[in-house]
Amino acid sequence: MTIGIIGLGLIGGSIAMDLRISDFAKHIIGNDYNSKNIRYALQRALIDEVMDIKNMIEHVDLIILAVPVNVIKKMLPDLLHLIYDKTVILDTGSTKHEICQSVVKHPKRNQFVATHPIAGTEYSGPQAALTGLFNKKTVVLCNTEESAPEALKTVKKLYRQLNAEFIELPSDVHDKHAAYLSHLSHIIAFSLAKVALGFQKKSTENVFYMAGSGFSSTARLAKSSPETWLPIFQSNKAYLLEAIEGYLQKFMKIQKTLQEDDLEALCQYMAEANDIKKYINPNLA
Amino acid sequence: MTIGIIGLGLIGGSIAMDLRISDFAKHIIGNDYNSKNIRYALQRALIDEVMDIKNMIEHVDLIILAVPVNVIKKMLPDLLHLIYDKTVILDTGSTKHEICQSVVKHPKRNQFVATHPIAGTEYSGPQAALTGLFNKKTVVLCNTEESAPEALKTVKKLYRQLNAEFIELPSDVHDKHAAYLSHLSHIIAFSLAKVALGFQKKSTENVFYMAGSGFSSTARLAKSSPETWLPIFQSNKAYLLEAIEGYLQKFMKIQKTLQEDDLEALCQYMAEANDIKKYINPNLA
Repeated sequence: MTIGIIGLGLIGGSIAMDLRISDFAKHIIGNDYNSKNIRYALQRALIDEVMDIKNMIEHVDLIILAVPVNVIKKMLPDLLHLIYDKTVILDTGSTKHEICQSVVKHPKRNQFVATHPIAGTEYSGPQAALTGLFNKKTVVLCNTEESAPEALKTVKKLYRQLNAEFIELPSDVHDKHAAYLSHLSHIIAFSLAKVALGFQKKSTENVFYMAGSGFSSTARLAKSSPETWLPIFQSNKAYLLEAIEGYLQKFMKIQKTLQEDDLEALCQYMAEANDIKKYINPNLA
Repeated sequence: MTIGIIGLGLIGGSIAMDLRISDFAKHIIGNDYNSKNIRYALQRALIDEVMDIKNMIEHVDLIILAVPVNVIKKMLPDLLHLIYDKTVILDTGSTKHEICQSVVKHPKRNQFVATHPIAGTEYSGPQAALTGLFNKKTVVLCNTEESAPEALKTVKKLYRQLNAEFIELPSDVHDKHAAYLSHLSHIIAFSLAKVALGFQKKSTENVFYMAGSGFSSTARLAKSSPETWLPIFQSNKAYLLEAIEGYLQKFMKIQKTLQEDDLEALCQYMAEANDIKKYINPNLA
């Protein structure tokens, strides 16, 4: 199968690496608006060759759209118009509802499969690409009833090469869950980084000697690229603001127990939060 | 040297493991109020034998006080009274000012060295003890002018066996830095865990399929033990509330930019937060 990848960043690049190792992709054609990314992707042999999108369309069986979510939304309807009837497009965006809505009445909607592989790091660009990034990770497939069964089959086959697992969800439900379980964590990390950097500015010493593994873990996502995350926040604004509000209520509750020396309530709060042990995988943190 | 360790948890247990590997401790005597911890410490051969504190004092050259900070504050003055003139005590508490204040006028103050090894995990108890936990980590030594030079020398020698590095700070400055760079991260993680668990309760599906490495990293510290952390929050209340207030201001600023679609300000906020890359060690996250 010949595969086109538009967007040679962390996600596009990591998919390329694993598709090369498996036999799924006989030939990979890349495209990126950033010429540095293209040079790097060629240097690392993530792709076989570069083409502009019009040319790419002539040669590929499947297109992976791994660009920021606002760019996916903008490109997808035109791309669908341009591709052959047997070509499949999948996207890898972290929000799904706006993207699905942008093509809901498109005559070639069924050639598109909306996916969100829950994998990544705080780094970006083809230099951050990793093999095995999707190993045992979850891929959410959204609104699959709107995709042709054959297209869906191809996309599942692709993700199986990466050793990923699937769940299927309506795009709106996906976005709500993503707000609480992924996007909020980024808002929190950005805010923690800002207050620590502000504190550093006012200090005469380097206060980061104190930044052990706890701070590094909690603030890690603050290294994430605004180019990727600004469009995600924007496109999931309503649910993200709901999650932010819910978080603020919890945060202010623990603040209040501390202000009022309500040690019993503070202890109970922490013990309840400890339940998170049941849900998060220690190997991921 | 014969060493006594009071508190056979993650920190006490990990120190024991490394002191055994080096030749620094010829004999380690342990004590813990929790009989399960004692059994486990003996099983894992973290210690050679168990004694009550009165007996331990008769046999040891150095006592490591690795119990929660409220217990350190309570035990330290009496312990200092009981020990021989050449015995040294060090504590490993995460807050230092209250502990130092509790013995500031003690006639045997100079036999005590106040330390904070910046190392740990979200787990607790002797079963969580690890070799190499302090390797290349920072140990803060507080108010060293109040310790006898010989006592300080012994304590530095001990931490050098663990391959740790030092900085020296006044206890009050240490606590302020710890509030912003360590304790605040815990408050944040507890709050994130609480909102995610609350969201899960209201959901019909398991929403944690979405908990990838980002959430796991940001919420990791929510697994931390209330027994350790409640006394830390309490003893650093004033600075922690200051850090909480500073964080809330930053958090509400990013919330406002999102509410008002002020994309330029949101992008700038994130770009500024990205500066954290300069300060945190990717190997720690």
